[in-house]
Amino acid sequence: MPKRIAIIGAGPSGLAQLRAFQSAKQNGEDIPEIVCFEKQSNWGGLWNYTWRTGVDQYGEPVHGSMYRYLWSNGPKEGLEFADYSFEEHFGKQIASYPPRAVLFDYIQGRVEKAGVRDWIRFETAVRRVEFDNGTFHVTVKDLPNDREYTEDFDHVICASGHFSTPNVPEFPGFESFKGRVLHAHDFRDALEFKDQDILIVGTSYSAEDIGSQCWKYGAKSITVSHRTAAMGYDWPDNWAEVPLLTHVDGNTAHFKDGTSRKVDAIILCTGYQHHFPFMAEDLRLKTANRLATADLYKGVVWVKNPALFYLGMQDQWFTFNMFDAQAWWVRDAILGKVAIPSRAEMEADVADRVAREDAGEDDYDAIWYQGDYIKELIAETDYPTFDVEGACQAFKQWKGHKKAGIMTFRDNCYKSVMTGSMAPIHHTPWAEALDDSLEVYLRN
Amino acid sequence: MPKRIAIIGAGPSGLAQLRAFQSAKQNGEDIPEIVCFEKQSNWGGLWNYTWRTGVDQYGEPVHGSMYRYLWSNGPKEGLEFADYSFEEHFGKQIASYPPRAVLFDYIQGRVEKAGVRDWIRFETAVRRVEFDNGTFHVTVKDLPNDREYTEDFDHVICASGHFSTPNVPEFPGFESFKGRVLHAHDFRDALEFKDQDILIVGTSYSAEDIGSQCWKYGAKSITVSHRTAAMGYDWPDNWAEVPLLTHVDGNTAHFKDGTSRKVDAIILCTGYQHHFPFMAEDLRLKTANRLATADLYKGVVWVKNPALFYLGMQDQWFTFNMFDAQAWWVRDAILGKVAIPSRAEMEADVADRVAREDAGEDDYDAIWYQGDYIKELIAETDYPTFDVEGACQAFKQWKGHKKAGIMTFRDNCYKSVMTGSMAPIHHTPWAEALDDSLEVYLRN
Repeated sequence: MPKRIAIIGAGPSGLAQLRAFQSAKQNGEDIPEIVCFEKQSNWGGLWNYTWRTGVDQYGEPVHGSMYRYLWSNGPKEGLEFADYSFEEHFGKQIASYPPRAVLFDYIQGRVEKAGVRDWIRFETAVRRVEFDNGTFHVTVKDLPNDREYTEDFDHVICASGHFSTPNVPEFPGFESFKGRVLHAHDFRDALEFKDQDILIVGTSYSAEDIGSQCWKYGAKSITVSHRTAAMGYDWPDNWAEVPLLTHVDGNTAHFKDGTSRKVDAIILCTGYQHHFPFMAEDLRLKTANRLATADLYKGVVWVKNPALFYLGMQDQWFTFNMFDAQAWWVRDAILGKVAIPSRAEMEADVADRVAREDAGEDDYDAIWYQGDYIKELIAETDYPTFDVEGACQAFKQWKGHKKAGIMTFRDNCYKSVMTGSMAPIHHTPWAEALDDSLEVYLRN
Repeated sequence: MPKRIAIIGAGPSGLAQLRAFQSAKQNGEDIPEIVCFEKQSNWGGLWNYTWRTGVDQYGEPVHGSMYRYLWSNGPKEGLEFADYSFEEHFGKQIASYPPRAVLFDYIQGRVEKAGVRDWIRFETAVRRVEFDNGTFHVTVKDLPNDREYTEDFDHVICASGHFSTPNVPEFPGFESFKGRVLHAHDFRDALEFKDQDILIVGTSYSAEDIGSQCWKYGAKSITVSHRTAAMGYDWPDNWAEVPLLTHVDGNTAHFKDGTSRKVDAIILCTGYQHHFPFMAEDLRLKTANRLATADLYKGVVWVKNPALFYLGMQDQWFTFNMFDAQAWWVRDAILGKVAIPSRAEMEADVADRVAREDAGEDDYDAIWYQGDYIKELIAETDYPTFDVEGACQAFKQWKGHKKAGIMTFRDNCYKSVMTGSMAPIHHTPWAEALDDSLEVYLRN
């Protein structure tokens, strides 16, 4: 009997895994039976936009954290698939910072070509994964039919992502703040905040990008509160960076330096949690959001039970092509083409990765560290090699462009490390491009 | 070894169950070991207000559906505990439509007096309930310690409520509506909608009350869309009732009669689901929101496995004192003081309740039907009898008062069926009472 593999989630990581197996099949290899469980009604994970917040029509927590008018905040040249270039998909090279719909279309293009949609059970939420006697028992809920069932698998690959379950701190006074308090996860439309004074808590990508969206779509002012350090970009005039929020009093927000501001809404850009409520305790990953995750050999093998894999659980400079490198490696581990060592060796590998990450000094070291990780995985499988260092260089340029102009960096272009061709300059500067549709974006 | 009982939830139903067992203990009876699992950090269920929406600090779906400035929408004389009157708690009779904080205080008063807080494990979410070999295996997550564990129980009493998981329909155009679309479950502060044109979808209590809140706190206009029939109250001038929403185009909402309106926000007051994702399939209640629930003998015993009970799963005219009647009855079933018949007899009981509910013609029949149900349960236990018909009369008066003035009905007062004393007229008409604090409310 062929092995049975359960993949949890049909976002970029889960789809990479489907494509990895399909690629082996296409090369004439025997592959296991694959079942991918996806809670949403379509594939794409976070890139599958939903207007919904909170829980969905079936009472399940909404996966989506993306908002309208979202454009990639990093160059597409850093995330291009090595086996499916933007030029192959769109029939031409496109500009470097595509909006969400364009990236969704690109992700979808590869898996449509691969013909793997039938491997996915949509609107099926994983309720429980347990392991005994060498077998995983996976209990899922068929949401439209309101029916739970359990199937057995030899391997489970958890690809459910870690930017869906928000980390939501409380500050004194929130219980009586007279406006909306929301986490970035629930942010959907910047127009809701037009002409308002917005307070953002946090300094990571969500803070930077949601603040920029609100600015672009007409917020009256943006105040960003930081715990440790300001982002320090050259912000517009109606944008201020202030120390950490201490408390809220009515609609007045008070900060650590004793200053205060009246605000209409508070957006918590305070990050996400690795959250796997469906995983039995002995299978559940508990890690900080970092490049060297806890308890994952090669960043993917659950050291406490190497029949279980996690994809994409790292903090991310690289995304799609890193998920690919991982998926190809996991496929080959399952096919027995790469060996999984003893537990002690796996634990030593984890410790070594942690030490190497900790030895890095800045973002540039982190980018190179993750680039090296991808090269290491790719070298052990048949995933097409590509110029990882070239991609690292694109990230480096990108950081420079952000410093040069936080509202103009998306107007730059970079060279594809897959095809060698240069991206065109986009027809409209990002700050003026209010229509984020695929049709308008591709009009170059 | 004494039996072990798991209670899921420490809201009004779960607390009624704790009080029921404590009352038996106080009377010298031997009671089982009780463990109540509560996801939130405090008791009170829906009455424990939270500013949070979506998921909480642990990534668990937020239980709370209540909003700021919420006042009871029915007279307190219909929900008073028979063993703990408002006068006992507050030291005096109080007005008939208390705000949330006042009702929370009242609920809390009884269980503080009973001394049952130690029976509750707070911040503990139930992950999974399974049954085999006569035993329930209950897996829970200790949220602050990020640790799952499993314990065994002889009985499970599910009291997790059914007004927490929203029913959220989609209408065409929501994916590009340029404002906030939310369910009543996520509504928190009417001031967020001040000076806005609000569209409400639905005609039940949430629609009526959230619309009224928005009106009271300064919304520019309220439009309520109904599927079958308008509510038909004598609304203020800036309030309109319109047929069902067909679609949204930009910020314009279109209705079935061909009319349209520009709106700033859409609030879906479209009800709630009975949602028990933690229950194994063979234990999971699937029922419509009605007075005669599916598969529950006497409205509480799971007919497919009578070691399992559900509390408060009915649609509700009566609330707190109905939960009490149920909790006392379930206690006595577990103590062996009332008998549980054969499965066939239980199924006949369910069918009979359904038929009797279906035979009712209007809301008044429904009120009396539920009043009779409470009398039936009370007659079989030592829960203090009370004038259930008097409570039904209060409901009847209440409905008349709503017809007479939807923005003034809360200014009426009713007689307690527990103590016989009349409620005072509140010092401020509801429409002018912007401060909903306990302190101000009790200043009579």
